[in-house]
Amino acid sequence: MEELIRPEIKEIKDYIPGKTVPGLTKLASNENPFGPSPKALEAIKKSLASLHIYPDQKSILLREALAKKFGLKEDCFIVGNGSDDIMQIAAATYLKCGEEAVIPQNTFSVYEFVTRLLGGQPVFVALKNFEQDLDAMAKAIGPKTKIIFLCNPHNPTGTYLPAEKLNAFIKKAPKNILIVVDEAYAEFAEAHDFPGSVNLVNQNKNVLILRTFSKFYGLAGLRIGYGIGQPELIKYMFRAKLPFNVSRLAQAGAATALLDKKFEEKTYKNNLEVKQYFYAQLDKLGLEYKKSEANFVFIKLKKSADQCFMACFKKKVIIRPLTSFGLPQAIRVSIGTKEQNRRFINCL
Amino acid sequence: MEELIRPEIKEIKDYIPGKTVPGLTKLASNENPFGPSPKALEAIKKSLASLHIYPDQKSILLREALAKKFGLKEDCFIVGNGSDDIMQIAAATYLKCGEEAVIPQNTFSVYEFVTRLLGGQPVFVALKNFEQDLDAMAKAIGPKTKIIFLCNPHNPTGTYLPAEKLNAFIKKAPKNILIVVDEAYAEFAEAHDFPGSVNLVNQNKNVLILRTFSKFYGLAGLRIGYGIGQPELIKYMFRAKLPFNVSRLAQAGAATALLDKKFEEKTYKNNLEVKQYFYAQLDKLGLEYKKSEANFVFIKLKKSADQCFMACFKKKVIIRPLTSFGLPQAIRVSIGTKEQNRRFINCL
Repeated sequence: MEELIRPEIKEIKDYIPGKTVPGLTKLASNENPFGPSPKALEAIKKSLASLHIYPDQKSILLREALAKKFGLKEDCFIVGNGSDDIMQIAAATYLKCGEEAVIPQNTFSVYEFVTRLLGGQPVFVALKNFEQDLDAMAKAIGPKTKIIFLCNPHNPTGTYLPAEKLNAFIKKAPKNILIVVDEAYAEFAEAHDFPGSVNLVNQNKNVLILRTFSKFYGLAGLRIGYGIGQPELIKYMFRAKLPFNVSRLAQAGAATALLDKKFEEKTYKNNLEVKQYFYAQLDKLGLEYKKSEANFVFIKLKKSADQCFMACFKKKVIIRPLTSFGLPQAIRVSIGTKEQNRRFINCL
Repeated sequence: MEELIRPEIKEIKDYIPGKTVPGLTKLASNENPFGPSPKALEAIKKSLASLHIYPDQKSILLREALAKKFGLKEDCFIVGNGSDDIMQIAAATYLKCGEEAVIPQNTFSVYEFVTRLLGGQPVFVALKNFEQDLDAMAKAIGPKTKIIFLCNPHNPTGTYLPAEKLNAFIKKAPKNILIVVDEAYAEFAEAHDFPGSVNLVNQNKNVLILRTFSKFYGLAGLRIGYGIGQPELIKYMFRAKLPFNVSRLAQAGAATALLDKKFEEKTYKNNLEVKQYFYAQLDKLGLEYKKSEANFVFIKLKKSADQCFMACFKKKVIIRPLTSFGLPQAIRVSIGTKEQNRRFINCL
């Protein structure tokens, strides 16, 4: 059948996931070490009673909960089977065949995937000191540019775009370009000048924010994420999604997770504390790393990331070698519990 | 933003789902009235313990279970977020912009949706006596045809394509056309000459069978379906899917559902019995309907389906008016329990 496939499919590389082995310490996929909110789990269990009924096509209850949380209208939200579903929906809505998407190099691979899937052309812009280089990205904009993908905080380097810089970039960019800001890790950010999502959406018709329940909310196995934008931007995206893209359990669990303040505080506080501990240990070992606004730390090695991965794996700790991100001498290590990160430190 | 969207999006119509109102009798979406297998529910509950961990990207355990069930290799299966996800993946893998998909008229709308989403052109072929007209579909094949969508049993009319006719059609069709056979309701079929999925796959490199856990297995709210084809056909489709398209709960629940023979027998037997009861009642009322190989019955009215829907709705029974299928004087009524179908009969 190879001669029948779309040429775009030939360009698509396999996604290399973090390895999961039961019983081992997994610090490879930035999952919440506490699991999900117990209240969310209860809501999921309750909704098992109606599992034979199709889910709500428009995730209305969850979108109401999100509207309350953010102080925006429900029409500003669209829910997906993970935030990568929203990336695909955004591309399917806006990216015409042959148009370009400007994408940071060495970043989350699904931006490139959805661009190629829709017949678009990715234009990669090198990082600068492992940060997204907005000046270079602005220069990469051409007449065919339709989407710009930004990742804030940036996966896998943990760096961030401060509000002032990001706002200036968006203001300068042509208004007929969709600017997607993937905030998968935004709930962990501590920087005082981290951009406010609500401001970004209120001030810009062409900005789409992406959020997920996979990281901070510990629901990676359930598959649910969402997009935030002005209603005019979002409404066309509903046309490009599969009717029942989000399960009943995911809708129920996510809506309840948003209400569990205690769980949110516990997760946030643990991340700050273990991150400080982790920095201190890495300093002691003299390792080069980036300060992180997320729940992982990017570490530059002087040797092969794949070898480091194997050495840790033998000691029952799974980390993420960044070879598939195009960084064969760097690793990304999730911030788990202190005990989990101690196990990683002991590997070194 | 309207001026920025892809022209394809303008052609896409909203999906009109069956209405769900808690407390009412829902016979609109062909859901299993017994809910899911209790064993599947147990498996889902167990997997809640690891909900913060990403799901297996390739649904390996479920594909092993499917391989056992069908007596095919694991490489013959791909799992999706509902079988409509597989439709989209198939189109994204094979349907080039501008190519055509031959689709029955008055059928499940997602075939048209995925065709348009990928920039393809749907070519509709009228039903003949409410059955898919294979002769006319063969004639509709042209140089641009890339996919043919068939639905067996056919949603919403309940009719089926017998093995001999379907085999002859496939044999005659050009080998560079992907023939998608949507078997969402195949587990309910009783006809002795209903085509065997394994034969179809073994004998044809260009046939993709679609199955779902939403109907027979009572897991519509969970979102899981799959595709079956020869490994050469399936392997490229893995490139066109989002990495984590199927939740942990769905993979675990579905794999266990396949093992619950008691539940399968109960579901199958109930459907046969209530269908016979339903036919007898419809005969008494002198209504025109089609014999069904699925878990629903197609009824032709002499008046407006929407009015019939409203009349039933007032009596707390929800059925599916087929207006959105282009059949404004026909309804589709699910086979539920005998008591549920009696309630519908009482509405008439």
